[in-house]
Amino acid sequence: MTVAARRTVPLIDLRPVGHVIGMLAACLGLTMLVPMGFDIHAGNGHWHVFLATSVITTMTGGLTAIACANGTADRLSIQQTFLLTTGVWVALPVFGALPFLFQPIGADVTDAFFEAVSGVTTTGSTVFADLEEMPEGILVWRSMLQWFGGIGIIIVAMVFLPELRVGGMQIFRSEAFDTMGKILPRAAQIASQISWIYVWLTFTCFLGYLALGMDRFEAVNHALTTVSTGGFSTSDASFGAFQGGPEYLASVFMILASLPFVRYVQLLAGTAQPLWRDAQIRAYLMVISAATLVLASFEIAADEATFEPALREAVFNVTSIISGTGFASVDYQLWGAFAMVVFFFLGLIGGCAGSTCCSIKIFRYQILMSAIAAQIRRIHTPHGLFAPRFEDRRVSDDVLSSVMAFFVLFIVSLGLLAVGLGLTGLDVVTSISGAGTAIGNIGPGLGPIIGPSGYFGPINDTAKWLLIAGMISGRLELMVVYVIFTRSFWRD
Amino acid sequence: MTVAARRTVPLIDLRPVGHVIGMLAACLGLTMLVPMGFDIHAGNGHWHVFLATSVITTMTGGLTAIACANGTADRLSIQQTFLLTTGVWVALPVFGALPFLFQPIGADVTDAFFEAVSGVTTTGSTVFADLEEMPEGILVWRSMLQWFGGIGIIIVAMVFLPELRVGGMQIFRSEAFDTMGKILPRAAQIASQISWIYVWLTFTCFLGYLALGMDRFEAVNHALTTVSTGGFSTSDASFGAFQGGPEYLASVFMILASLPFVRYVQLLAGTAQPLWRDAQIRAYLMVISAATLVLASFEIAADEATFEPALREAVFNVTSIISGTGFASVDYQLWGAFAMVVFFFLGLIGGCAGSTCCSIKIFRYQILMSAIAAQIRRIHTPHGLFAPRFEDRRVSDDVLSSVMAFFVLFIVSLGLLAVGLGLTGLDVVTSISGAGTAIGNIGPGLGPIIGPSGYFGPINDTAKWLLIAGMISGRLELMVVYVIFTRSFWRD
Ligand SMILES: [K+]
Ligand SMILES: [K+]
Repeated sequence: MTVAARRTVPLIDLRPVGHVIGMLAACLGLTMLVPMGFDIHAGNGHWHVFLATSVITTMTGGLTAIACANGTADRLSIQQTFLLTTGVWVALPVFGALPFLFQPIGADVTDAFFEAVSGVTTTGSTVFADLEEMPEGILVWRSMLQWFGGIGIIIVAMVFLPELRVGGMQIFRSEAFDTMGKILPRAAQIASQISWIYVWLTFTCFLGYLALGMDRFEAVNHALTTVSTGGFSTSDASFGAFQGGPEYLASVFMILASLPFVRYVQLLAGTAQPLWRDAQIRAYLMVISAATLVLASFEIAADEATFEPALREAVFNVTSIISGTGFASVDYQLWGAFAMVVFFFLGLIGGCAGSTCCSIKIFRYQILMSAIAAQIRRIHTPHGLFAPRFEDRRVSDDVLSSVMAFFVLFIVSLGLLAVGLGLTGLDVVTSISGAGTAIGNIGPGLGPIIGPSGYFGPINDTAKWLLIAGMISGRLELMVVYVIFTRSFWRD
Repeated sequence: MTVAARRTVPLIDLRPVGHVIGMLAACLGLTMLVPMGFDIHAGNGHWHVFLATSVITTMTGGLTAIACANGTADRLSIQQTFLLTTGVWVALPVFGALPFLFQPIGADVTDAFFEAVSGVTTTGSTVFADLEEMPEGILVWRSMLQWFGGIGIIIVAMVFLPELRVGGMQIFRSEAFDTMGKILPRAAQIASQISWIYVWLTFTCFLGYLALGMDRFEAVNHALTTVSTGGFSTSDASFGAFQGGPEYLASVFMILASLPFVRYVQLLAGTAQPLWRDAQIRAYLMVISAATLVLASFEIAADEATFEPALREAVFNVTSIISGTGFASVDYQLWGAFAMVVFFFLGLIGGCAGSTCCSIKIFRYQILMSAIAAQIRRIHTPHGLFAPRFEDRRVSDDVLSSVMAFFVLFIVSLGLLAVGLGLTGLDVVTSISGAGTAIGNIGPGLGPIIGPSGYFGPINDTAKWLLIAGMISGRLELMVVYVIFTRSFWRD
């Protein structure tokens, strides 16, 4: 190849990336006919907006896919994979925001894009108030965005992240494909199996909510946003409108949605042992139980609450925050500062890898704690050899340094985002908890504005854009996004 | 040795530890005659309390040292070194608290011990109000405790921590003793050199404060607490009582006190290059400059402040917080949420290793950022070899994992301490900033109670004891204290 020829082609061929993103956008456009159907069924006058955005999205996506078709390759390079992943989580919210923008609900560009990003990243922070007054189409569209975002991230986390060696996810590479290899040879097959499990979980959750008294519309929406650990609701009061049985059911499904989905595939293949023995799942359930007991006891002691509502409120809200779903059934800030601090740090724990959960995630804490324990033994016995372990296996240096780098990056990003939010004029609690809830894809923050009984509408536009950046980076394990902004990424 | 004989001796011989602690306590007891002198000179009636506590401390310390004398060895084992370091920072505040307890200033056991720990750890959080009404002896004693704590930690950080391989400090081992080896063969000599530099810095600072208008008593106290980056003051208003020139002078000496002291030793030996070329120092000065510029601009833009006071207030308060001194000249919380968030995270940066500074410290961020950069290059070029670097040298895996473990431990400790403080009923901002200021040995927190214009008197006793644990652990790089609480420490 001559130098001149080289110059005509960019260093990274963006066409395969554009092709896939275009195809996904076209599919997203087609799904906009669903909320249109809901609006027609409910007799809402503005259903044609969904038809228009559907046509725009499908055509734009389709044309992009066709334009980029001659660049398709059998395999994406590592650079292309990074660009594809980030590109999907930026482009789909752009199209997903169109219905919010063009429906007569008073959303400007910032609000519409914020809501769509909050949907696709399964964060669940909302800028909309008076949800009860919203047209059914808009509410369903919000829930659908979360549901797509949920299955999307599971597949990315299972198929792409281990290959990209991001944030220590490579520890699940050999595991998933070694043990799976015998049963299911190809990633595409796993992805399809997982999608069916996801659909089945959603449907079961829907039936459960119906049985416990939600109407069909509420049950559909909450099933979509429970299984995706998204947390959008059809009511400003979130689960405050569905106290009692639905809270227990939601807790069960939020937990199911935050376990590694590969275990369900193995379960279907007839082996339950990996599920029972999974160290992540055990630690996760232990943390939930401990936090629930402490908070319920605290609530009973402090507010003289009775046992049943106290336990229910504790288990529901703990599960909701640690899984990053972000439903709220009470304003737990009223339980006092202790509860606020606990909920803030629970959000920084997160669920299991390979699920819809975001944040730091249980397995990273397990690896970090094991590394610190090894460190301690090495300090007082300098000539011994102690290595961190996870699930009875040695953690390689590569995985360990990825996990630690992720942790540092998470905390530093949170700090910088909090400083940025403070600079826009938000108060300290809103800034720090807002940064945490965005990067951790949780949903509610703390304080009077963005706390569990508030919403993100009143904050300024600059802060909203900062939070958008935080939600997307956090959803893609930070590194996937940050890598793209380094010079060496484009040079090599 | 028979089994019976083994049982009569504990696995770790505590006598050498007791011997050294006893000797140090005896010395501390003798120094209590200094505040006695101040009280006599000022005509305060209760000077005899210092005589009594001096006799008690000197005798208890001396007797302990004699009782443990037959256990002295040429070399301490690693276990003994850990116990000695932690023991010193627990035992000296116990004796240091006696004057606070027995002087008629209304301090109970908790307050007296809190103030002494805050002194010896150079934290500078105070439980006392109306400092202007305090007897001179008490004020000098507070300042002296910080000054002793400051020189103590420099020597521990230079001589012990690198040997104990704690928190990545081992990176300074070869450096200090390789380059130093040719000039000064022994650690004791370095320690003595550093002590003289410390004395000289203090005296120069004292003269400077005198020249800029402090009276002799104020100048002595502030010189002692500036050079130790301690932050106790003789006035409730802290440096609010000495605005103008003293703020600039204090900024200079706070910076000098937070640089690696080994550079001064080299400077005296005739080589200034290590000082100019030190990567830590450069990064530290850059962070201070950047934060100062941003905050001063912000203050000018937001409050229409004029250039000079804005720059002065910014540089003084930034230096004070990042160096962990904790003087305040204004309530920077009034600058708005942005300033609060910036000051919170500045406190989590800290100064250079090998100084009196605490917190995470600049060199750890440099190593972590280099590790993340190496990670990023490794991600998109999987077969390349990229290693983190510090000062143009490869960072060993041992150092890197120590640094990362320290960072994780710091953040997790901060989180747990904040939850604990919340449990005692403190509000969110007080809990989280209180945890940060204690573990980072900074001084002031945020919020109305413990903020720069508040003090730690009003908080509850449980919270004070939690903060005491945080201050001691933080001062000793966490790991030195935590190691002692592991079973394997006592077993091996
Ligand atoms: K969520
Ligand atoms: K301090």
